[in-house]
Amino acid sequence: MKISARNALKGTIKSITKGPVNAEVVIDIGGGVLVTAIITVHAVENLALKEGKEAYAVVKASEVMVAVE
Amino acid sequence: MKISARNALKGTIKSITKGPVNAEVVIDIGGGVLVTAIITVHAVENLALKEGKEAYAVVKASEVMVAVE
Amino acid sequence: MKISARNALKGTIKSITKGPVNAEVVIDIGGGVLVTAIITVHAVENLALKEGKEAYAVVKASEVMVAVE
Amino acid sequence: MKISARNALKGTIKSITKGPVNAEVVIDIGGGVLVTAIITVHAVENLALKEGKEAYAVVKASEVMVAVE
Amino acid sequence: MKISARNALKGTIKSITKGPVNAEVVIDIGGGVLVTAIITVHAVENLALKEGKEAYAVVKASEVMVAVE
Amino acid sequence: MKISARNALKGTIKSITKGPVNAEVVIDIGGGVLVTAIITVHAVENLALKEGKEAYAVVKASEVMVAVE
Repeated sequence: MKISARNALKGTIKSITKGPVNAEVVIDIGGGVLVTAIITVHAVENLALKEGKEAYAVVKASEVMVAVE
Repeated sequence: MKISARNALKGTIKSITKGPVNAEVVIDIGGGVLVTAIITVHAVENLALKEGKEAYAVVKASEVMVAVE
Repeated sequence: MKISARNALKGTIKSITKGPVNAEVVIDIGGGVLVTAIITVHAVENLALKEGKEAYAVVKASEVMVAVE
Repeated sequence: MKISARNALKGTIKSITKGPVNAEVVIDIGGGVLVTAIITVHAVENLALKEGKEAYAVVKASEVMVAVE
Repeated sequence: MKISARNALKGTIKSITKGPVNAEVVIDIGGGVLVTAIITVHAVENLALKEGKEAYAVVKASEVMVAVE
Repeated sequence: MKISARNALKGTIKSITKGPVNAEVVIDIGGGVLVTAIITVHAVENLALKEGKEAYAVVKASEVMVAVE
């Protein structure tokens, strides 16, 4: 399946913290950069996400903001 | 100002395409990875965004999805 | 690629309206129900979206609200 | 109240799973299709959502992605 | 129709800027505070939005970030 | 850091409810208006958010809907 979301950052799952509804998944995309995703616990189970597994952080372009110093 | 958004990816603005309301800003975050943001034209002007300028792609954790192959 | 987004509604593309940055894609998911998506023009081109083509409307669960009458 | 969100899918609440902050509400929109929403527990209480109750899954068009096989 | 979105800020429409797909609607919520919304042009027409009209800026709680100085 | 998000509403934190992953932060922006944000517990800790502290509710313009009565 190809999706319209413009951004897919490849990395490795560093940690998964589960609550009763949502889970926090931290993906290490290299260069010391971590990306945090909040997804449902059902999604974690459905995709069989585990620490150390390769995964992509996917973001729709309209959800990305820009900041400058 | 410190913001709750968990993800800030540092890079350089590669291109800006303006429409009448929204603009597409592409940020090169290194390693051959591009991040696309859709923000308002007013924001582009207000932050004085320009190609070549250093910028961060900022994303709220709840907007990040996870995908696996 | 499997994605964490919980919602994928299958349908047929009814119309595509392009602006300079974003495009409006209307998907007929059957039963007289239309779903409208705003995605980038680049995504429309990259996925080769066309009227009449089968497609899914995909939505992250955290983006869905609930309303009652 | 009329809202700008373009998408409202009518259905029946199939299940509600509550955490301390968020709840997962699954709406059956017919034809074997389920839509999952993550909303606050306060919203579940405020709208008096219950299994079996008629409800709409409402989504802003800019939150909808498109996928093709 | 009652919606799960937790935030509805009452104000008056100050300006509407239309592009071919999206429109920028600025709502004056009083006290010198303006709220900017990007919605589809179809939504502007469907709700018959006009400058000077009373309107609410509605935001799902999961879309709100917190910042401190 | 300046961010592209168009909306920043100044107020005072009225309450914080923490779950294992997400937290609900209610900000009083004056005039009897409360804004609810769902952010990660890590963000609450990282920004050292506390009841009574001054804070901004920040929202990307593309996440704001418009409603009329």
